Amino acid sequence: MIIAMQSGATDEQINHICDRIRGFGYMPHVIRGEERTVVAAVGHGDKKEHIESLKSAEGVEDAFPILQPFKLVSKEVRKQKSAIKIGKVTIGDGGFVVMAGPCSVEGRDQLMTTAESVAKSGAHLLRGGAYKPRTSPYDFQGMAEDGLKLLAEARDKTGLAVITEVLDTGDVELVAEYADVLQVGTRNMQNFALLKKLGEINKPVMLKRGLSATIKEFLLSAEYIVTHGNPNVILCERGIRTFETATRNTLDLAAVPLLNELTHLPVVVDPSHATGKRSLVRPLSKASVAVGADGLMAEVHPKPEEAWSDGPQSLRLEEFAQLMRDLEPYVNLRKSESN
Amino acid sequence: MIIAMQSGATDEQINHICDRIRGFGYMPHVIRGEERTVVAAVGHGDKKEHIESLKSAEGVEDAFPILQPFKLVSKEVRKQKSAIKIGKVTIGDGGFVVMAGPCSVEGRDQLMTTAESVAKSGAHLLRGGAYKPRTSPYDFQGMAEDGLKLLAEARDKTGLAVITEVLDTGDVELVAEYADVLQVGTRNMQNFALLKKLGEINKPVMLKRGLSATIKEFLLSAEYIVTHGNPNVILCERGIRTFETATRNTLDLAAVPLLNELTHLPVVVDPSHATGKRSLVRPLSKASVAVGADGLMAEVHPKPEEAWSDGPQSLRLEEFAQLMRDLEPYVNLRKSESN
Amino acid sequence: MIIAMQSGATDEQINHICDRIRGFGYMPHVIRGEERTVVAAVGHGDKKEHIESLKSAEGVEDAFPILQPFKLVSKEVRKQKSAIKIGKVTIGDGGFVVMAGPCSVEGRDQLMTTAESVAKSGAHLLRGGAYKPRTSPYDFQGMAEDGLKLLAEARDKTGLAVITEVLDTGDVELVAEYADVLQVGTRNMQNFALLKKLGEINKPVMLKRGLSATIKEFLLSAEYIVTHGNPNVILCERGIRTFETATRNTLDLAAVPLLNELTHLPVVVDPSHATGKRSLVRPLSKASVAVGADGLMAEVHPKPEEAWSDGPQSLRLEEFAQLMRDLEPYVNLRKSESN
Amino acid sequence: MIIAMQSGATDEQINHICDRIRGFGYMPHVIRGEERTVVAAVGHGDKKEHIESLKSAEGVEDAFPILQPFKLVSKEVRKQKSAIKIGKVTIGDGGFVVMAGPCSVEGRDQLMTTAESVAKSGAHLLRGGAYKPRTSPYDFQGMAEDGLKLLAEARDKTGLAVITEVLDTGDVELVAEYADVLQVGTRNMQNFALLKKLGEINKPVMLKRGLSATIKEFLLSAEYIVTHGNPNVILCERGIRTFETATRNTLDLAAVPLLNELTHLPVVVDPSHATGKRSLVRPLSKASVAVGADGLMAEVHPKPEEAWSDGPQSLRLEEFAQLMRDLEPYVNLRKSESN
Repeated sequence: MIIAMQSGATDEQINHICDRIRGFGYMPHVIRGEERTVVAAVGHGDKKEHIESLKSAEGVEDAFPILQPFKLVSKEVRKQKSAIKIGKVTIGDGGFVVMAGPCSVEGRDQLMTTAESVAKSGAHLLRGGAYKPRTSPYDFQGMAEDGLKLLAEARDKTGLAVITEVLDTGDVELVAEYADVLQVGTRNMQNFALLKKLGEINKPVMLKRGLSATIKEFLLSAEYIVTHGNPNVILCERGIRTFETATRNTLDLAAVPLLNELTHLPVVVDPSHATGKRSLVRPLSKASVAVGADGLMAEVHPKPEEAWSDGPQSLRLEEFAQLMRDLEPYVNLRKSESN
Repeated sequence: MIIAMQSGATDEQINHICDRIRGFGYMPHVIRGEERTVVAAVGHGDKKEHIESLKSAEGVEDAFPILQPFKLVSKEVRKQKSAIKIGKVTIGDGGFVVMAGPCSVEGRDQLMTTAESVAKSGAHLLRGGAYKPRTSPYDFQGMAEDGLKLLAEARDKTGLAVITEVLDTGDVELVAEYADVLQVGTRNMQNFALLKKLGEINKPVMLKRGLSATIKEFLLSAEYIVTHGNPNVILCERGIRTFETATRNTLDLAAVPLLNELTHLPVVVDPSHATGKRSLVRPLSKASVAVGADGLMAEVHPKPEEAWSDGPQSLRLEEFAQLMRDLEPYVNLRKSESN
Repeated sequence: MIIAMQSGATDEQINHICDRIRGFGYMPHVIRGEERTVVAAVGHGDKKEHIESLKSAEGVEDAFPILQPFKLVSKEVRKQKSAIKIGKVTIGDGGFVVMAGPCSVEGRDQLMTTAESVAKSGAHLLRGGAYKPRTSPYDFQGMAEDGLKLLAEARDKTGLAVITEVLDTGDVELVAEYADVLQVGTRNMQNFALLKKLGEINKPVMLKRGLSATIKEFLLSAEYIVTHGNPNVILCERGIRTFETATRNTLDLAAVPLLNELTHLPVVVDPSHATGKRSLVRPLSKASVAVGADGLMAEVHPKPEEAWSDGPQSLRLEEFAQLMRDLEPYVNLRKSESN
Repeated sequence: MIIAMQSGATDEQINHICDRIRGFGYMPHVIRGEERTVVAAVGHGDKKEHIESLKSAEGVEDAFPILQPFKLVSKEVRKQKSAIKIGKVTIGDGGFVVMAGPCSVEGRDQLMTTAESVAKSGAHLLRGGAYKPRTSPYDFQGMAEDGLKLLAEARDKTGLAVITEVLDTGDVELVAEYADVLQVGTRNMQNFALLKKLGEINKPVMLKRGLSATIKEFLLSAEYIVTHGNPNVILCERGIRTFETATRNTLDLAAVPLLNELTHLPVVVDPSHATGKRSLVRPLSKASVAVGADGLMAEVHPKPEEAWSDGPQSLRLEEFAQLMRDLEPYVNLRKSESN
């Protein structure tokens, strides 16, 4: 870590910092400049507690780490992308995995119609929410276990693996019984109790980026799951909150190649939630292939105008079929590049 | 709700919208303009499902609600501020309640020293975290039940009521046994499972505003707790996430008078977390009194440079004593205004 | 426009609103609901002055427009994309125009080497700053007219048209003498005096989106130039300011298809300024083709480590040549789609 | 400056960095850690060009400055606050200066009525816009020189000094003939050509913080004016752009004490533009006194519901009179503290 002293810091203050650095098990290096003195402390790891405590000492202007705080999810630990098996599909092996389905499971008809259609169109996983995190307590909260059962039934019918969201530590075991991938939603990205619990199961977890989470915080939340025992984490960029109101959120597509530099975990893009607009899903899906994502999550509904949530951003069945046809040459082009 | 049709919308499309509005139990009013037609639907409540589903219909450009989505926490339901009793103290009765203590409970000595000192300086509640939501899994995660026991011991010694954070539905009952007020942290403001569970206890809850939560979302999260049975909710403005990095967050002090217009719930300000800088706590605490807050939460530590978390923003014991002396004339001035 | 009355608004207040609406030349429509009354005013245009003044009236809770405030740049005025001729190149005709060159013109050698190399690699325009908007007064401010002369010399040598930034109304005529396209930088997007002046010249203008400009504000700034007489405006998405610090800005690629829906003006992407990282330029350039942009602006420098500005985001000459080879199949794929 | 090498950086790369640092005139200090090597370069100033160029070198992960980039406006240069004389008033001497008046000058009656009323209520300066920066070209653009003449007439009548906005370098001289203080609006905070020109006049300048400007950028824009010869700069916090839409902007009151730590320039708060809501002006004005601002700018209009701009946030004449009565005890309390 680096400790920048204030411009008038005394020798006594500088010596005190050096003593404390040695106490933490680092070696201090004092560098005296014309205007200011800097102390560099190099050792094994940049512990946040140490940095914070030095920041509070007399004569210190600022203290900051040199090392990235995440380890197990880092590219420095594993150079090659982690390929994660989900049923018959693998994500992270250079292909492009598509997860499609309704925002909420609303009933058998709605779900089976969607599942069979997206399967035929070439989707790899079926998505559908049984537990819904809704901003208002007066909005539909999901079908809970009945929804999970319908998802399992749809899997039996179509062969599609199933991804669904879990909201609470108390539901993890139940959801894991039914789902192939457990999803952590944007509002729970820093629900650390939930992350720890998901570290203990043996199913893959898809972690959505928080509404206002930095890339570093996103990776640290993934690190929670991995350090607690579950290495199979998929990251999902789904838009961040900004001042812009023309779209629901701002899709941060630069996050995809940046994550590809920083971590070995697979990265998926969700343009439906990112934009809230059906018409933007198609161009952004193509862009997701081109930018290097490992997959896509898209909302599909047989009748969006009757959907209980997220209708305006859901594709109709035929629109999704068209999307899959549109994506194919982009996926092929990308494959030809890597050969 | 208001439905704006696209500029070339057909009569058939407009009639379809009117039929659907009637189906929802509202009365449609069609207003034809030179460039565009607007349909207004007036009735009991603006259901989000209805608005979303109309947004997806053919010929519709946009649809939006007229009514505020929160009800029980709204000023329209109750004009007067809710006064909430916490032990011997009442918050929301026009006075100014101060909650002070360390970020984390680190041990008996640290906690008792702080508790006795802040009690002597005039604080009303003792704060201290036993369960800590930490961005990194490698950071200190809190003393858990041992921390709760120390807080209870400190209450016995000093008479101060105790406020502490709960992170998970599974811990709510345990925390409620020890604490006088349960705190929901910024990262859990939309942990709806937790909010529902807190609606079932009979202790007050302090809900911190989410890092990137709008005022409307903040009130809807409070509404979750109240609709589930617990009317004793205190709101806490603690800074929002913006582009600015000179302070840890951006304290949104305008939220205080705005909340005072919209809701009857008491509002507290936390300048320590909002800014991350000890030197800014004092001026912003005075401003919090002047702007109309019902209370203040401040971090205090006997030796900030040895704190395991948040040292740079924690006041020393004597600094807190001075703060309380500084605030007194502002609190008195405010009281004299309301007479 | 729509005027939502407060829940207890009196008949007198409602009548007063209706009178004022008639005074503005609109027809008022009163819609009385169970909880609240809404007044809709439909007519020719939603004047901001009218909306603002009604917002201030007694009994009014809110007032908002129905119509988009931009007109001449809107898709409603002209369905087909505007194709703009720049020397031998046309932007907006379905092709993909690449503008490349150094952040700043630093001298003859640097500029000629770059210009010849990017021309050979297939770039269509040469970029280079002669007037530099720098955050600090102590940073290099550009070569001014000497830089413009070098750009003209490079055009003569390579046949590339030249785009360069203008910072002040006082420089518009001079810059227009030398440049083929005048660029308005992100910090000047709402420098309305400059926009008006650029409306009076007969050279195309490239308008960069402001650091924190909404899509609506972006289009209104373009509207300034067009209403003042210059229809040849190119829009440039170059990243917006958000809380994220891992990249310099957050590239809002969804803005491209959204702008394609709202306006007939061509749209270009600048991934260099958006991210500040050389390694992200390549994947985001591919994504820009896939998402439907009309062109790309990229920073290229013969020796980025010696650049006077923006070195970390500048491509080396050979990296740019590789980028052009990489983009070709994406551009071809896009062309094949539209056939 | 500090240069963090990548984890596998070679000796050759490290030596190359050291050579370049010596070439810039700094002394390099190499600190080898277990995981990573850091090079510290200490010397006179942290030039941005140097840092940027090192960032681009092989083997470098990151490079960052230690020193603040602003100098003349810094507290390190001058410990005491700069007191700036404006007519008979001084700002920055510990008192609280109030600037009040309409958003736009709309005509003689409107301006004289307002000026006489705010003078009687105790305002120190009259504000009023003659050149208006409007988001849409279809909105009222201001009365230009006719407005300036009316402001001068109002000054003659009331004795109030006049502050008004200048939008373009071409207007600086004209505006300076009439105004006592020239205002730079939020959209022009980084109009560097304008800042340089304002450095050459001998009237005080009030610089408003940009919509999305960091504190550092704000101070660097002030530094532009000061380095070009004009030391009389007043800073104005007027709200920043965030995701929150309940208020027009988010007032960053923590910026006031933070600026008081970093710079000797006076700081004023504008709660009218910050919030866009009349009812929030009063509580935030009190908070501005309490937090340590040197003054206040408030919009006042005789008939807000007829204002051509910013009606919803303008105080009525009697409301402003009441505000001045309300502020008095806060100003007195603050004065008593500093004794």
